[in-house]
Amino acid sequence: MNPFEIGIVGGTGGIGRWFAAFFASEGYPVHVVGRNTDLTLRDLAERCRVVIVAVPIGVTQEVIHRVGPLLDPGALLMDLTSFKAAPVRAMLDASAAEVIGCHPLFGPDVPSLEGQNVAICPARGERWLPWLRDRLEKNGARIVETTPERHDRMMALVQALNHLDTIVLGLTLREAGVSPADLEPFTTPIFRMKAAIVEKVFGASPRLYAELIAGNPHTDELLAIYETQLARLKDLLARKDIDGLAAALNPGKGSP
Amino acid sequence: MNPFEIGIVGGTGGIGRWFAAFFASEGYPVHVVGRNTDLTLRDLAERCRVVIVAVPIGVTQEVIHRVGPLLDPGALLMDLTSFKAAPVRAMLDASAAEVIGCHPLFGPDVPSLEGQNVAICPARGERWLPWLRDRLEKNGARIVETTPERHDRMMALVQALNHLDTIVLGLTLREAGVSPADLEPFTTPIFRMKAAIVEKVFGASPRLYAELIAGNPHTDELLAIYETQLARLKDLLARKDIDGLAAALNPGKGSP
Repeated sequence: MNPFEIGIVGGTGGIGRWFAAFFASEGYPVHVVGRNTDLTLRDLAERCRVVIVAVPIGVTQEVIHRVGPLLDPGALLMDLTSFKAAPVRAMLDASAAEVIGCHPLFGPDVPSLEGQNVAICPARGERWLPWLRDRLEKNGARIVETTPERHDRMMALVQALNHLDTIVLGLTLREAGVSPADLEPFTTPIFRMKAAIVEKVFGASPRLYAELIAGNPHTDELLAIYETQLARLKDLLARKDIDGLAAALNPGKGSP
Repeated sequence: MNPFEIGIVGGTGGIGRWFAAFFASEGYPVHVVGRNTDLTLRDLAERCRVVIVAVPIGVTQEVIHRVGPLLDPGALLMDLTSFKAAPVRAMLDASAAEVIGCHPLFGPDVPSLEGQNVAICPARGERWLPWLRDRLEKNGARIVETTPERHDRMMALVQALNHLDTIVLGLTLREAGVSPADLEPFTTPIFRMKAAIVEKVFGASPRLYAELIAGNPHTDELLAIYETQLARLKDLLARKDIDGLAAALNPGKGSP
């Protein structure tokens, strides 16, 4: 397949910009549409065989419904959103093009695809899938092909639960009445790792993290498990049950 | 001060062994007493000018009360426990020696003192403090001199709260019904960092972590804040209040 033009809606920031640079480095002419670019979605659809939607979650479906109908059946419509069920459904509804849902499981701060995971949900057509896999795999990415539903279920753990845990820690540290500067000389390596994650989640893009948590249909279920486990720990602590606490950590080693 | 002999009770494992190797590399003859060594505490106290107690938290006070009375006023009695109030009080009660409470804020897996924090609580005498500071600082440690009470209050955040947060996450992941192998292809860099911390806390020494949490007098207070913050997030999620959630993360940026 000869190089062809690739269009990225939302390609001026975040992971969209990252993929614009990636495809450019792979030798493809890349065009981006952002809030402040002159190119229209119609221009993009006419020039590009591959159109990638990389806008914030909250406007993804709207953008898909605007750009999807402009693509012909031989083109590829792909999104990079952190959820897959709703965007893939929207792409299938809005367009006659081939459809692949894609979730790069990393942020725009990684230097390359090497060792990074990418989830893909092929949804319509078979022409573009080998091309996409080749581009990603030859640059060191590990691909997991899955259904949108399974993807979103896994993200409830990897993103919603994980970030919730980080956020509760961050809010508690903020409320505890000790300044980061006072705490710093007392920090351990593990605490510094956790504090760096807290800083990243709190600092980078609050809305993105809020959407990852609030938008996942499985968050409530995991939050309920989280509360149950917290209550279990609280109960062991109230009884100063160190053996029980150690056993909870490691059923094999904890009992005396 | 010429090299003299240093004794470490609990020097056959963990941080005790680490410091045995450290002082040996500094040119001091080091003797260790462990559960399976022939040397008695009396032998150790007779030969060594510095005696360091590095046994598990649960038996620290008992060991201090056994070795403390054997030391003369010119010697140094020091402990390496993760709490400072109770061990320092026990050392002052049990011994006429100089007393320093010391908490190396790292585990035995770090390669050197470079960049690591060490909290010290000088409690009796002034002869040994400069020697200890010199040994630690010349090898790159950052010393924080503090009171036992302030140290323990900081550890409620750095250890008890931090590890509690890790443990609730680990237990929830365990209960969520997805195997680590199934989850692995879907992991992000942040998730892998968190999972590595979970693995460390759950795998290494359940009893140590249980004691760090259950033994800190401030844990209950932080657990109450943690529960309040979790309830606050749960409430925002129940209302699908993404703006509110983003605002909680970053009051400055979260509001639309």
